[in-house]
Amino acid sequence: MTEVILPLEQSDLSFTASGGSSVRRSVLPSGVRILSEHVPGSQSVSVSFSVAVGSRDETNNHFGSTHFLEHLLFKGTKTRSAMDIAVAFDSVGGSSNASTGKEHTSYYAKVQDKALPIAVEVIADMLTSSLIDETEFENERPVILEELAMNDDDPQDVVHEAFSTAVLGDHPLGRPIGGTIETITAVSRAAVWEHYQNNYRPQDLVVAAAGSVDHQELIKLVEQGLSTAGWDLGLQAKPVPRRLLNPAKISRGSKLTVIHRPISQVNIMVGSEGLYVDDPRRYAMGVLNTVLGGGMSSRLFQEIREKRGLAYSVYSFNQGYSDAATFGLYAGCSPAKAKEVTELMIAELDKVAQAGITSEELALARGNISGSLALKFETNQSRMSRLASAEIVAGEFMDLDETIERFEAVELSQVQALAQDLIGLPRSIVAVGDVSETMFESFVR
Amino acid sequence: MTEVILPLEQSDLSFTASGGSSVRRSVLPSGVRILSEHVPGSQSVSVSFSVAVGSRDETNNHFGSTHFLEHLLFKGTKTRSAMDIAVAFDSVGGSSNASTGKEHTSYYAKVQDKALPIAVEVIADMLTSSLIDETEFENERPVILEELAMNDDDPQDVVHEAFSTAVLGDHPLGRPIGGTIETITAVSRAAVWEHYQNNYRPQDLVVAAAGSVDHQELIKLVEQGLSTAGWDLGLQAKPVPRRLLNPAKISRGSKLTVIHRPISQVNIMVGSEGLYVDDPRRYAMGVLNTVLGGGMSSRLFQEIREKRGLAYSVYSFNQGYSDAATFGLYAGCSPAKAKEVTELMIAELDKVAQAGITSEELALARGNISGSLALKFETNQSRMSRLASAEIVAGEFMDLDETIERFEAVELSQVQALAQDLIGLPRSIVAVGDVSETMFESFVR
Repeated sequence: MTEVILPLEQSDLSFTASGGSSVRRSVLPSGVRILSEHVPGSQSVSVSFSVAVGSRDETNNHFGSTHFLEHLLFKGTKTRSAMDIAVAFDSVGGSSNASTGKEHTSYYAKVQDKALPIAVEVIADMLTSSLIDETEFENERPVILEELAMNDDDPQDVVHEAFSTAVLGDHPLGRPIGGTIETITAVSRAAVWEHYQNNYRPQDLVVAAAGSVDHQELIKLVEQGLSTAGWDLGLQAKPVPRRLLNPAKISRGSKLTVIHRPISQVNIMVGSEGLYVDDPRRYAMGVLNTVLGGGMSSRLFQEIREKRGLAYSVYSFNQGYSDAATFGLYAGCSPAKAKEVTELMIAELDKVAQAGITSEELALARGNISGSLALKFETNQSRMSRLASAEIVAGEFMDLDETIERFEAVELSQVQALAQDLIGLPRSIVAVGDVSETMFESFVR
Repeated sequence: MTEVILPLEQSDLSFTASGGSSVRRSVLPSGVRILSEHVPGSQSVSVSFSVAVGSRDETNNHFGSTHFLEHLLFKGTKTRSAMDIAVAFDSVGGSSNASTGKEHTSYYAKVQDKALPIAVEVIADMLTSSLIDETEFENERPVILEELAMNDDDPQDVVHEAFSTAVLGDHPLGRPIGGTIETITAVSRAAVWEHYQNNYRPQDLVVAAAGSVDHQELIKLVEQGLSTAGWDLGLQAKPVPRRLLNPAKISRGSKLTVIHRPISQVNIMVGSEGLYVDDPRRYAMGVLNTVLGGGMSSRLFQEIREKRGLAYSVYSFNQGYSDAATFGLYAGCSPAKAKEVTELMIAELDKVAQAGITSEELALARGNISGSLALKFETNQSRMSRLASAEIVAGEFMDLDETIERFEAVELSQVQALAQDLIGLPRSIVAVGDVSETMFESFVR
């Protein structure tokens, strides 16, 4: 079976995925969704607890509270201190962490299978009965400010954040995930608490696990963990619907943003809106990004790095969300070469729009994508992420062979048409470094 | 079998490693060493070609040439253009790359098993018959300079490099791997060519592969690749001896180095010489680093981040080489807190020296280390690296259970004794950020 619809109201599903692993999904009466993939031969498990709430869902007084909350869930529950939580994770030696995105927040662990019970117990405790203690809250505020400062000292982080804002303007997805120094300094414990109460409920929760995991055992562990710690799973609820595609209006933020920094390189990003996460052209985008700015054989790499020696790092990307997206070309180069590099990047996209790609390039991209996907799904973590994303984002599970078929079906004309669409969109340029606005003025339109 | 000596003169060895994988090693008459680990159930292979030469081996006019050479091997051979090499790697979708270290240089690929022949063929071609074409050489020089500039814009990179120099002074291991803007601008094609000819020979080469790989088939592929492309494997040679422990003298570079940068955080590193790669105290060091500056439950994390909210990132580390090493404590914090954080970091190491760690901490560290190691060796890449390192560095293969036993055997007194040794060594402090020397003067000794 290669494509499986995951209806919110259907309680049980099971099917076989690539490599012979068996996938099972259960929707509990409380609305909690549990997905597992048993991978034969594996001795570890990757497990995640996710809620489909991210920085985009924050309202005016709450900017940065999703990420702040993610930190605070590690700071103590009704029965565990911050140290108890730290010790529980550290004792098993698994990697454990959490990540806040623009559309969802996840807590995950990779552990040996014998440690799955403790990992589930602790994460469930954090999700259901964190205290968000006032003192811990104030202790954590400067830590978040240090994290923002660290990111601000990384020019590549800075250009990415600024590019989202430049392309998406006032759209909630244009905001930085972690908030700003001002919003983090201002946010109150009450705002974060409200965010927690409103968004961490059984019907919001998706648990996904892959590796050496038994589905019934996982359900038992999750139910036990969630109810011990504080949730009443007897209250029946429907899972929250997937994010509706009710696109917010996008009004571009800026045509040109230059952030002056006295550093060695200038980090340049040129681009536009990109493809939403469910856009049918996303397979053509995969091919375009491989040919234009993927590996060593890509056009940007060859033209800008290999032939001209202008940059070390150069690539293209699409960052898709449910109702907004960015598409960009990136290079880091010497300020003296900023104009030339910007011109070359735009010219390469333009060439694809004008003349398309060759059938050799298409064949190479297909081989590259199939090979990468096959290698990617060797890890339990990527299988876990695929399950979570199928449930939270897509509403269907697509197996490796079907995904590869979609890429194989991409035609030359679709790639060219996509490049034409992209080059025709309003353009945003962002540069971080020791450069002036005038260097980029000829590209502004 | 848990510990296997790998004598340079013995041609064939085979044994079983943890998880039931079978390890084989062959030393060809030409001196080429080939190690493989067949991992049951795996469908991919990680393969590396390594030579035990790194930046430390460079002589005066060659600084940066090891890394420069690594780049140049991708730029064309007698039969392949740079584009051919790029296409070969990109077509299979595997990750492929190269890395230059201070003591060795490696070229590796992770591919689906069916693509192993092409991966071996291309890497062998690069190693044996690269042209180091003068035009390509000049094209690549600015790319390397951009890479150096990129690293220079990353304050965490900068503090690490400067710390090595501060602790190790004029020792060759104290130099930055990639050279400097001056040395890269000055280095000649002839110097890099000489480096290539002197160090890329059959007797220098170690090939290691792990995953879905058959040893005899691998030998055939390697022999074919190396001889097709230009090496005469009929010439008999002994493998080059492992790096002799003939310690170069270490004279500390500086007690205090402040690199002024107008950035948000200050990146602080405090430390001293550390443990060489074969130091018997390395297991105690593993425990010390886990307890002092490992995960969320570590002392540095708890004291500096959790209790006081002074930093986001804080840790300790040991970087060991064959005859030199560094041990350091790192934190990124606000310049206003630099003095407090430095004092706290030193105090935590001092506390372990004064009072040791608790038996609870020792038990936690053991669990953490065993768990991490077990998870780590789930990947073919880490198994491949273990093989290469066993051959190049240690001269023996140590299996997972034996390694874990060594950590289990660490005693409380050994950890305290190690902390006492470390705190007693000459101290170096490096800070990168918007700070002044005076903030750190009280810690200089």
